[in-house]
Amino acid sequence: MTGEELLVVGKPLRRVDALDKVTGQGIYTGDLKFPDMLHAKVKRSEHAHARILRIETSEAESLPGVIRIFTSKDVPGENNVGVIVPDQPVFAEDTVRHYGDAVAMVVAESEDLVRKAVDLIKVDYDVMPGVFDPEEAMLPNSPLVHPDGKYGNEGNVLSKMGYEKGDVEKGFRDADIIVEEEYRPGYQEHAFIETERCIATSDGRNVTVYGSLQCPFYVRDAVAGALGIPRARIRIIQTAIGGAFGGKEDVPSELCARAALAAYILRRPVRKIRSREDSIVMHTKRHPMIIRHRLGATREGELVAARVEIISDQGAYCSVGKYVQKRAMVHACGAYDIPNSKVDTSFVYTNNILTGAFRGFGGPQVAVASELQMDELARRLGMDPLKLRLKNIVEKGGITAKGQNLDNCGKGLRECIEKAANVSQWDEKRDAYEKFNEKMKHSSTGTLNIRKGIGMSSIMYGVALGGPTPDSATSTCQITEDGSVIITTGGTEMGQGAKTVLSQIAAEAVGVPLHYVTILDADTSIVQNSGPSVASRITPVIGEATRRGAKEAVSEISNLACKLLGVNRVRSVIAPDGTPFSVPADAMVKKADIDKFPDKVDYHELVRSCYGEAKLLLGVGFCSTPTLLENGEYRDYYTYSFACHIAEVEVDMDTGRVMVKKLTCANDVGKAINPQTVEGQIEGGAVQGMGYGLMEELVTLNGRILNPSLVDYHIPTSLDAPQITPLIIEEHDSFGPYGAKGIGEPSLIPTPAAVLNAVGHAIGLAVRKTPASPENVWRAIRDHR
Amino acid sequence: MTGEELLVVGKPLRRVDALDKVTGQGIYTGDLKFPDMLHAKVKRSEHAHARILRIETSEAESLPGVIRIFTSKDVPGENNVGVIVPDQPVFAEDTVRHYGDAVAMVVAESEDLVRKAVDLIKVDYDVMPGVFDPEEAMLPNSPLVHPDGKYGNEGNVLSKMGYEKGDVEKGFRDADIIVEEEYRPGYQEHAFIETERCIATSDGRNVTVYGSLQCPFYVRDAVAGALGIPRARIRIIQTAIGGAFGGKEDVPSELCARAALAAYILRRPVRKIRSREDSIVMHTKRHPMIIRHRLGATREGELVAARVEIISDQGAYCSVGKYVQKRAMVHACGAYDIPNSKVDTSFVYTNNILTGAFRGFGGPQVAVASELQMDELARRLGMDPLKLRLKNIVEKGGITAKGQNLDNCGKGLRECIEKAANVSQWDEKRDAYEKFNEKMKHSSTGTLNIRKGIGMSSIMYGVALGGPTPDSATSTCQITEDGSVIITTGGTEMGQGAKTVLSQIAAEAVGVPLHYVTILDADTSIVQNSGPSVASRITPVIGEATRRGAKEAVSEISNLACKLLGVNRVRSVIAPDGTPFSVPADAMVKKADIDKFPDKVDYHELVRSCYGEAKLLLGVGFCSTPTLLENGEYRDYYTYSFACHIAEVEVDMDTGRVMVKKLTCANDVGKAINPQTVEGQIEGGAVQGMGYGLMEELVTLNGRILNPSLVDYHIPTSLDAPQITPLIIEEHDSFGPYGAKGIGEPSLIPTPAAVLNAVGHAIGLAVRKTPASPENVWRAIRDHR
Repeated sequence: MTGEELLVVGKPLRRVDALDKVTGQGIYTGDLKFPDMLHAKVKRSEHAHARILRIETSEAESLPGVIRIFTSKDVPGENNVGVIVPDQPVFAEDTVRHYGDAVAMVVAESEDLVRKAVDLIKVDYDVMPGVFDPEEAMLPNSPLVHPDGKYGNEGNVLSKMGYEKGDVEKGFRDADIIVEEEYRPGYQEHAFIETERCIATSDGRNVTVYGSLQCPFYVRDAVAGALGIPRARIRIIQTAIGGAFGGKEDVPSELCARAALAAYILRRPVRKIRSREDSIVMHTKRHPMIIRHRLGATREGELVAARVEIISDQGAYCSVGKYVQKRAMVHACGAYDIPNSKVDTSFVYTNNILTGAFRGFGGPQVAVASELQMDELARRLGMDPLKLRLKNIVEKGGITAKGQNLDNCGKGLRECIEKAANVSQWDEKRDAYEKFNEKMKHSSTGTLNIRKGIGMSSIMYGVALGGPTPDSATSTCQITEDGSVIITTGGTEMGQGAKTVLSQIAAEAVGVPLHYVTILDADTSIVQNSGPSVASRITPVIGEATRRGAKEAVSEISNLACKLLGVNRVRSVIAPDGTPFSVPADAMVKKADIDKFPDKVDYHELVRSCYGEAKLLLGVGFCSTPTLLENGEYRDYYTYSFACHIAEVEVDMDTGRVMVKKLTCANDVGKAINPQTVEGQIEGGAVQGMGYGLMEELVTLNGRILNPSLVDYHIPTSLDAPQITPLIIEEHDSFGPYGAKGIGEPSLIPTPAAVLNAVGHAIGLAVRKTPASPENVWRAIRDHR
Repeated sequence: MTGEELLVVGKPLRRVDALDKVTGQGIYTGDLKFPDMLHAKVKRSEHAHARILRIETSEAESLPGVIRIFTSKDVPGENNVGVIVPDQPVFAEDTVRHYGDAVAMVVAESEDLVRKAVDLIKVDYDVMPGVFDPEEAMLPNSPLVHPDGKYGNEGNVLSKMGYEKGDVEKGFRDADIIVEEEYRPGYQEHAFIETERCIATSDGRNVTVYGSLQCPFYVRDAVAGALGIPRARIRIIQTAIGGAFGGKEDVPSELCARAALAAYILRRPVRKIRSREDSIVMHTKRHPMIIRHRLGATREGELVAARVEIISDQGAYCSVGKYVQKRAMVHACGAYDIPNSKVDTSFVYTNNILTGAFRGFGGPQVAVASELQMDELARRLGMDPLKLRLKNIVEKGGITAKGQNLDNCGKGLRECIEKAANVSQWDEKRDAYEKFNEKMKHSSTGTLNIRKGIGMSSIMYGVALGGPTPDSATSTCQITEDGSVIITTGGTEMGQGAKTVLSQIAAEAVGVPLHYVTILDADTSIVQNSGPSVASRITPVIGEATRRGAKEAVSEISNLACKLLGVNRVRSVIAPDGTPFSVPADAMVKKADIDKFPDKVDYHELVRSCYGEAKLLLGVGFCSTPTLLENGEYRDYYTYSFACHIAEVEVDMDTGRVMVKKLTCANDVGKAINPQTVEGQIEGGAVQGMGYGLMEELVTLNGRILNPSLVDYHIPTSLDAPQITPLIIEEHDSFGPYGAKGIGEPSLIPTPAAVLNAVGHAIGLAVRKTPASPENVWRAIRDHR
């Protein structure tokens, strides 16, 4: 990657699936139909916590066209789809633990019929007291969600995780100033356009599931477990996905296990499409957290101690909660060099709705706390928040708050902050808005009583799955007789541009134009388990596997070219007209020069010769992340992405309404494989983050969601989207393909805090109750008056 | 394979697809339905040779539900599907060259509609004189099938191929006795239960074709060529196949190219199912040949010279004719050591029906000639045909008639002959039947005037694709977290047992029970072009790739086991109860001893640990056949299979009817991976071969088939099948997996000649006009009287 001119990587090429998307040719699960296909829908629990006494299905079964009604008794394998701990049933057995639990499933000839039949199922319950507040749930006499404690839980506490570095008590004793606040970032709903869905088919022996699946290997495990058959007999194939954001990570496991069960037993295709209400009620949300954050600094603004306590509401089942917990713990103190730090986290079972994976995995929540703390500290110190950050950020060679030696990255953050500040004209605007606000305070003639603010948030984020087990992936690359290239990977395209980025990596590695490359949809039977498509790991980890596979496939072609040219090494080069050909290394030639080149070898001829001589042109690429430091310690994450987002807002002081006018978003991505898709990720992430900070609010009462629709749960629309200036910073990573790191999540994580800090700047006080909805902002203003 | 106890290979295990087949759960192309699926049918030529003046489609197009009618003008790429030479159009352009040419294709909403619409298409022709006899076709003034000669043809001669070894003229001068005869083995129809069929789908960019496809990679090439798009955008997936026998080798190319064209343009699934009549008229047949065979020997029966001239009717297009021609040439003189030999072959274009791939690829035809010649020679020498053969067979270290040094095989044939003779009680029966016949001749009271005979035929057959290019294949092996195994290959299961054999090879190589292994259906996108599923190459070549892939996948598991056990090498072992576990090499333990075994390691634990440590458990297996001899010459085929079949017949002298009473079939397969499927292959091949020798006769007149139905074209039914005794001989091969060679074709090749020689023995004279139908046998008897 150094010294080599990149020909496909780094170019803002059009997405390979762009035409499919805009012409409606993309095949989504809803587009798939199989002959004799049946439909399925579950009967949800009617209580947050209750014992099931009796399930009366006879009336539903008597409807003509109803084929069968399934309950937990029909599960031949383990009645469990929990991805970390086996706490989540395919169907509730004796107890329901939240409103999203499935009690039974109707399979019938039409979607109308399944809806009707579900309504005819009568369930007798013995309602039990529930627990809906995580702090109450930790009290000794609280009702227990999993009383037997067999999932490693103590009472309702699913898991405790924490660390201490240095001497925190001493740190605070040495501090000149201590900021201590409580933050309560709430739920967030993924609100993907396409709800969860799948189709399962089976001949009674093997099972194939097609679906809107972020993580096909999770689904394979869940289906294998529920059916009690070997994984080799199960094939999970991903179709086009209409948004996922973590909400289709382990969520499809229960959906697919149920559909697969019905298909396996009935030997007919079974389709399951969740209604929007089912989707909102049943699928996991972003974890709401109670974060108590104490930060100590010298009067010069040097951080000396941090103490963070996090309590999170897990809902009834673990889902990927423990991974979220680890990330929350590692990132709790932000991207700062703090010599003394202590973090404790408790993830607690309740009878509330489920929580789990969501773009950022705890990152946005802890960033809200730590970044609002930094602004609060700056306010108290009378210091510019930008300068406070630059003084304290952890850099290459430094030690993170968690204690990891940052030996392989860490230059990107300073660059992000400086670039974002520069481009947004931070200093000037900070000053100008303060003057404007001062003026507005004393004006009484304006039609709108607005204030302006600019705020920032800077973060680091661990890329890929955390250690100590390396994060690994497999990919295969087939070079066909005509030189076109077929790539298989374990990663999924879910709108984020994975196929485009992986195509560019493969095209670059083989040395062909982009349109020569086809990336197959993920299919668990054709590559080894390559982990989930999460954690911003597709580009760096699956991309690196793809690069290696392509290099392996092309090695025979290169060998042949070397032999023909009498040189030691060649690389493929694309001529400006798109005709690929190979030349010796270090001899870059332009199309116009080819004829002059004495030893040119045509790529197509080379490939044909390889086939003629029976050469292996199928490469397997495998990679695993370098989790081990030189000193023998494990990295928490093998590398980090960095970001600084700066928000500019206007606040209506009479209504509390916040308008985000501008976002300047600098993200260190290592290397932008495709700057256009990186910018797309930044824009999408920033808007989703803005929604979390500003408007998205899931209202629950005793475990029931009161606004389970996109009419009542507000996400940003295009009209809410501000002007966004994405800035790409590239601190090359030594592991990722061509230096790339992740961008999927770091594009979202800093935005909520940036928006809240901008609001804080505008109104002169922090809004700690999130989202910064008109009500919450107005109340903060009122309470302050 | 030496010294190691085999645990899965070599066992007569039940076919992995047995239940699917007998319960009707196997998914054939006819079982697949796609939403909005269209149907297609071609308008066939109405002449053997004509110029197309006008294609009138308006009436057909006006039928409601007819979507579109395609002709050659609609082909965006090359209008060609020829696999060797580009002589065969997707749709006829200006000329039709045989009755099976497609002039147009109707695509409509139902199968009824397409049939109706095809009848409404009117084509105006300028009928041209045709050529229907290959010898006439070679004359100077004969009508030309491809007048421009652009396919390397000279006039109608598509190809000439021959060789001379030693000094044939001198050989014949030195001979004491010369036998010279002409043989005319005819067409054979594959008569698969399931006619050719496919379904193509497309989003307008990529194309997927499902079908009853023997050689998916041929189809990919044809579709790519016809559509003019890269291979990487085309995916060919094989479904269950209801028989192929070579007749679905390149034949599906035209079918699939047409369906893919329609799907690609219409963006709807298009299904094409050939009627039985279309199937018989359109698909290639076994090549009829005119074989003039001259054989010289000493009076002691030592062969000294052979001269063979072969003229074969290719029909209008080359198909795989040149490969058939090469095999006919190499095998023309049989499995004998003949110091002086000369073979010339001419394959000739005519306006007859097409010929191409059929189990044996020219082998049965040349065996009819050379083996009847051997019996004729024995008759003239007054020598036992068995002894004549044993005196002359080529053996290991010897030189084949074609001139190849048989350095790596050649012990199997003597064993086959001796075993077959022994088991069939050749000597006793030869004698007894002669006495019986003598007695019958002079009896006048019998109700049935029958004669009994016993005859043999022994052959060698080149395994896999011939050199000098090595024959190669790729396979992948994924070991999943639960230890179950997924195999992908480029080979197809078409009823011959490939999935079972490959499963056994994979299970043996990994060290797991058979039910742990799943073999995916062939899919061109997931492995490299692995060649066609022909030439008896699946077990030896694709099987060896599978073994290597499995070994590669398992290598990390073995490494871990070695590490844990502190040994250098382990092999996986299956405990008698089916529980797999690993132990050090050379330490075979029984289940009962496991607990005593100090260092036992559980297989499942090993696999889990590999996943925990991020190890690559996806192996790519690749192999290519050893075509090069040590002396730098190329082998014609990298190894040979050998066989001797002995037939016993009764001939009704009044009607000419032949009843085959018994077949004793000894086949050298190298190593029987599954003796049960090998026996199945031998039985199936012998019956199909018996049909060719005895009853199958396609009647044509000026290029038109007069009996295009299975009512009028007779194949053996179960009632015709004799008692068959399969005998497995195993001369281990050094290349194939566990020593295996091919069996698919050598199971058929010797049978026709064996049956004909038995008839010859029974009636005391050779029946050279084949098949030995009642008419032909009766005529031979009559002509002799």
